[in-house]
Amino acid sequence: MVRQAGAVVVDLAGAQALAWTAWTDLASFPKSLPAGIEWVQLPSAGVERWVEAGIIDRARVWTSAVGVCATPVAEHALTLLLAGVRLLPECLRSAEWARTDLLPRVGTLAGSVVGIVGGGSIARALIPALAALGAEASVVNRGGHPVPGAVETRPVAEIGDFWEAVDHVVVAAPDTPDTRHLVGSAELDAMKQTAWLINIARGPIVDTEALVRALDSASIAGAGLDVTDPEPLPAAHPLWGHPKVIVTPHVADAAMTLRGFHQRLTGNIRRWMAGEDLVGVIDLDRGY
Amino acid sequence: MVRQAGAVVVDLAGAQALAWTAWTDLASFPKSLPAGIEWVQLPSAGVERWVEAGIIDRARVWTSAVGVCATPVAEHALTLLLAGVRLLPECLRSAEWARTDLLPRVGTLAGSVVGIVGGGSIARALIPALAALGAEASVVNRGGHPVPGAVETRPVAEIGDFWEAVDHVVVAAPDTPDTRHLVGSAELDAMKQTAWLINIARGPIVDTEALVRALDSASIAGAGLDVTDPEPLPAAHPLWGHPKVIVTPHVADAAMTLRGFHQRLTGNIRRWMAGEDLVGVIDLDRGY
Repeated sequence: MVRQAGAVVVDLAGAQALAWTAWTDLASFPKSLPAGIEWVQLPSAGVERWVEAGIIDRARVWTSAVGVCATPVAEHALTLLLAGVRLLPECLRSAEWARTDLLPRVGTLAGSVVGIVGGGSIARALIPALAALGAEASVVNRGGHPVPGAVETRPVAEIGDFWEAVDHVVVAAPDTPDTRHLVGSAELDAMKQTAWLINIARGPIVDTEALVRALDSASIAGAGLDVTDPEPLPAAHPLWGHPKVIVTPHVADAAMTLRGFHQRLTGNIRRWMAGEDLVGVIDLDRGY
Repeated sequence: MVRQAGAVVVDLAGAQALAWTAWTDLASFPKSLPAGIEWVQLPSAGVERWVEAGIIDRARVWTSAVGVCATPVAEHALTLLLAGVRLLPECLRSAEWARTDLLPRVGTLAGSVVGIVGGGSIARALIPALAALGAEASVVNRGGHPVPGAVETRPVAEIGDFWEAVDHVVVAAPDTPDTRHLVGSAELDAMKQTAWLINIARGPIVDTEALVRALDSASIAGAGLDVTDPEPLPAAHPLWGHPKVIVTPHVADAAMTLRGFHQRLTGNIRRWMAGEDLVGVIDLDRGY
């Protein structure tokens, strides 16, 4: 694959660039890189563990796979949101035709405002699908730069009444020290009682203990989680089998991820050889 | 409401039109209507029970509520399809982090072709949402008249390789003698083993016994059913709790239906008084 893109495969000592394809294997990453390595391509979209481990330095360019799996992840976010609003957790655990009970409670995304925390590629893939269902998107991002298709984009520093204003919340932000527990007790309390919280980003952005309390006290309607904290979610955790919770085991990006990464890697190799800007350059100051 | 539209409410004997709002109550419908009644508005989109009961005559214009709930029903179809493709039935019945097992099996609608049986308002509401997720629609309807946004529209008389060509099937047709058991053993056998069958229209369009056999023999991946035959689905029916089945108790049209019907009724009253064509006129020869 690397050769198809026009690169030559050599030993690390003589290389100019390193493509690291071992998905989550930080332990076997070289303790120090030769000075000749000018660029490292990492395989995942979220790189918080690489940042925390101190692997990413300022001596060279590092790129993540950010955006590669945005389309399947956005589809998974929509799946969890629709399943929640339309009470699939109840239906799938039922063995009786509870129409009278369910009919007044089944919701719709049509006419609703979905709050998206994070204005990156997942939000950009999700917004058109929401629009096709008659739902609007209100986005919170770092700098407040307007996200195409969103009815509103707020900088996180001026988040204001975001939590109470939106009908549902989708977490699609990177995991950084700034976003950890961004969704905690106060935010969950502020959310509508009919709101679903969807997290397809990273578990630690949501305070799990606060979430369980919010679910048990019915201060929100439910949670759809493809990522959890801790992860994997241990056996007997209160989120398992919770009547208001959908847990999927970090599979949002399952489809297409490998193909997408291959395209990103070969594209970046071609850009590198042509002296062009790389896609997915990591900014250590932001942490993603 | 009727008055807001400009009509006067009078006794049946002196009326020109009858708006029947008792959803499913055929028994209390007048045995014979005064000759002065020129138009009857019925409250449901599907009118097969009114046709079978011989209530609808050719002495006057009858209108159904067809299209009123197309948007919420299309949303429900998408919910069931996404939930199936992304294995929510397994996830919601699991209490362990089965990532390794699920990751290679989680699908996506992106790049898929969704076959839609029926080219009416539900198909027209569903197709843009599929498009936003990168999926195409192939439609079968009565006459083959092209449905906007579909990559292909076939008349049902020339259905050909439809069942094997599409990746999934959504049933969105009226219940008539022609459509009963339209999806039977042969059609289910022809469908892809990875296909989900979604029915948000009427239960009898699918042969339930054939469906259970197809699910048990893994000749299709699963079924998402908002309607069943019989309905309500009796306790202990094999579809309840089936690992490859999502049953919701005829709630697809829950949200917005009443509001939509009110808009349809008042709109039709205004059209009637202005001498314009009514929306949703029933054609007894077609049966819907």
